Amino acid sequence: MDAAEFRKRGKEMVDYVADYLEKIDKRQVFPDVEPGYLRPLIADCAPQEPESFEDIFKDIEKIIMPGVTHWHSPYFFAYFPAASSFPALLADMLCGGIGCVGFSWAASPACTELETVMLDWLGKMINLPQEFLAGKDGQGGGVIQGSASEATLISLLAARTKTIRRVQSEKPELTEAEIMGRLVAYASDQAHSSVERAALIGAVKIKNVPSDDTFTVCGSALKKVLDEDKAAGLIPFFFCATLGTTPCCSFDKLLELGPICNKENIWMHIDAAYAGSAFICPEFRHLLNGVEFADSFNFNPHKWLLVNFDCSAMWVKKRSDLIGAFKLEPLYLQHHHQESGLVTDYRHWQIPLGRRFRSLKLWFVLRMYGVKGLQEHIRKHVRLSHQFEHLVLQDGRFEICAEVVLGLVCFRLKGSNKLNEALLKSINEAKKIHLVPCHLREKFVLRFAICSRTVESTHIKFAWQHISQLATDLLKTWEQNHQQE
Amino acid sequence: MDAAEFRKRGKEMVDYVADYLEKIDKRQVFPDVEPGYLRPLIADCAPQEPESFEDIFKDIEKIIMPGVTHWHSPYFFAYFPAASSFPALLADMLCGGIGCVGFSWAASPACTELETVMLDWLGKMINLPQEFLAGKDGQGGGVIQGSASEATLISLLAARTKTIRRVQSEKPELTEAEIMGRLVAYASDQAHSSVERAALIGAVKIKNVPSDDTFTVCGSALKKVLDEDKAAGLIPFFFCATLGTTPCCSFDKLLELGPICNKENIWMHIDAAYAGSAFICPEFRHLLNGVEFADSFNFNPHKWLLVNFDCSAMWVKKRSDLIGAFKLEPLYLQHHHQESGLVTDYRHWQIPLGRRFRSLKLWFVLRMYGVKGLQEHIRKHVRLSHQFEHLVLQDGRFEICAEVVLGLVCFRLKGSNKLNEALLKSINEAKKIHLVPCHLREKFVLRFAICSRTVESTHIKFAWQHISQLATDLLKTWEQNHQQE
Repeated sequence: MDAAEFRKRGKEMVDYVADYLEKIDKRQVFPDVEPGYLRPLIADCAPQEPESFEDIFKDIEKIIMPGVTHWHSPYFFAYFPAASSFPALLADMLCGGIGCVGFSWAASPACTELETVMLDWLGKMINLPQEFLAGKDGQGGGVIQGSASEATLISLLAARTKTIRRVQSEKPELTEAEIMGRLVAYASDQAHSSVERAALIGAVKIKNVPSDDTFTVCGSALKKVLDEDKAAGLIPFFFCATLGTTPCCSFDKLLELGPICNKENIWMHIDAAYAGSAFICPEFRHLLNGVEFADSFNFNPHKWLLVNFDCSAMWVKKRSDLIGAFKLEPLYLQHHHQESGLVTDYRHWQIPLGRRFRSLKLWFVLRMYGVKGLQEHIRKHVRLSHQFEHLVLQDGRFEICAEVVLGLVCFRLKGSNKLNEALLKSINEAKKIHLVPCHLREKFVLRFAICSRTVESTHIKFAWQHISQLATDLLKTWEQNHQQE
Repeated sequence: MDAAEFRKRGKEMVDYVADYLEKIDKRQVFPDVEPGYLRPLIADCAPQEPESFEDIFKDIEKIIMPGVTHWHSPYFFAYFPAASSFPALLADMLCGGIGCVGFSWAASPACTELETVMLDWLGKMINLPQEFLAGKDGQGGGVIQGSASEATLISLLAARTKTIRRVQSEKPELTEAEIMGRLVAYASDQAHSSVERAALIGAVKIKNVPSDDTFTVCGSALKKVLDEDKAAGLIPFFFCATLGTTPCCSFDKLLELGPICNKENIWMHIDAAYAGSAFICPEFRHLLNGVEFADSFNFNPHKWLLVNFDCSAMWVKKRSDLIGAFKLEPLYLQHHHQESGLVTDYRHWQIPLGRRFRSLKLWFVLRMYGVKGLQEHIRKHVRLSHQFEHLVLQDGRFEICAEVVLGLVCFRLKGSNKLNEALLKSINEAKKIHLVPCHLREKFVLRFAICSRTVESTHIKFAWQHISQLATDLLKTWEQNHQQE
């Protein structure tokens, strides 16, 4: 395929994508396929001779689309949102065209420098303390990671190295292995599974801190486990606070937790993967109060800020902590400007070496929406979640299971977990909308997350009427079949 | 921006990308900017109100392009290639449009299933042993990682878990921390820095195995360090063999190393990040002989197989080893089909949770080029590197520093490292072509890598004449200034 054909096919693809997104509400949100559906539709081996674009293009509707879960459908209420917007799609096209691999400043200066400035823009939008910004000569700064999981892992590893060095200097009689064996990381019992995974990768212990009855970790809960562990000779070194937990979007109490971590030499990382985008609205910014105590902070514009996956924004107060955890410098990656101190080599800030020019997406989205446009997007989602909450509350058969703060509603039928499992099953089998569940303590709960950029009040009403009807149908047979229970 | 404007702007962007790539040879391959160039060109904060696409579009040439290192210029000979092709760009547009996050089968069945089948296609193209393929009920299979660094890390972590479990069952008196403290990983002294980094992250020791005078690790070298370490009570658990080292594209001797690793219960991972693409040509496939002894294998189609970054292909013989290293299963990520055994949830195969629909790029590229088209691409690059090698060999002032096997030529002026540093400096300051150096033992060496999809014989000739002329100029002044040396 030469440039001339790319011009033609590229424009067809632009129209295909525009059509897809414009008419996505006409597609069934969750696919009908069974595991293994695709293999029989596809040849066993790659073709020896080139095939035409037409043949491949036809196969998109024939082979791919029947197996797609349509994340951008206004009937998709599962997980958390995956961001999508036209400006981000345009920026990704440019990113692919330039196709640089920006692991060092020299590998493409624009790729590095735009990222640093965009993370400063974004940091200012959520009113991050100055220390987290790169500015012209700051010690902190931001970086785009692929996912919040990577941000958590990187911060845990940086904390691990920093703590080992500190303890070694204080107690030279301890070996590195002995120190490692005593390190403990902490996170809420509501924290994302990626925190436990980071500890597993980093080969350190991790303990859950019990959340209270609002699913929030407060200072006293952390202090209690710390005291016990220190008395047992362990070395607490890392706490991952969550703002907007995955099960129910609860918020750990940073203002209580932060001072404890600072006092105890514990690295505090804040995972605000979903909720972080909301902090661009002044009315939600208070949820971030206490970030001044943190060592690192992360949220995902690719969740809720209209920047297509992947774009996970992470900031640290001391970039030297991240770099110090990893820095290895073979000759083929060194370059002339390296020693100047002005230069950021982002490969030292992340797990992979290579990286795409992802800051273009931020640049396009922030400029084409403006802060006000993005605030509107957030506020619309929050409004819609409260609309759904009110509909649930008006129906005495249902209960709301956690405070609705942003775009997530946790609800269930009053009754057994089995009943609610049956309700979820009937919802997802009908495939008119798509939800996923969670556990809140012993309760099986349905999560209704406002996801699509194009979801409107009518979709919420439809979803509720649909759920309500399925509940009615279910309860009829349920009462007949489960009278003895 | 609505769909109608996206149709218009998307088509403009297609033309911009086509123009950029068609006329890339007219741009200076390496930028003139100094560190910090970009910040003064950009506002301090994100705009409150939306800006027009025209304004942003204008800024691409004004702000971004002056700071771009043009990786796809036919005058770019640095690092290793970053793949780029029009079919891959089209597939990435579709990937962005669909915008699903494929962490589990249910999150988008097509995303998972196409990936499994494409990795089988690719595995067959390089004639991987059957055990590495997923097929309909294989125990192995392939996955797309973001980078070779991640593939190395994942395999090291899987090996770590597997070894700890084995040793614990054999010697129940050892604690996990004690076992961890004795684990040792190994790689060639020529291996990529990401291997050392993986060990650092995984908190295990790593040792270099000395390569021979062709920069190759052979069986006896590995055996020697293993014997010493076992005698010292250490537990060797992981060996990363490299096919196509970064400094000079040398190849470790798999047929000697593999049986040793198998006998000693050492996980053998093969990193063929750059060279792996060449194995689709029967004449280079012998370089992969011995892969049958490996536990995991990785190469980067995003380097040399015309699939835009990121697309790093990794295979394992036993998927249960990868999954077993990590599996954590919160309720909101469980789904109906999970227990069927038919279903792959790729989040258990990788560091991040989220993942894009990257297999679309493989599907488009493999079909639109066909195996033959891709073989032609590889063969052209190898032909061009030999052309450059011959030009160097005809000039008695220069020497070739390592066997030219694929698309990389390591060369230098006969003489001091300082002289060669000066030559590289004059080449990169002239900015007509772009190279990076490496060290081979004590020697400072210039790396000439064939990179661009559009590079032709004329560019090679030009590059050589240019280098040769700069060498002449340099040697003139050098002899005057360094007569005493």
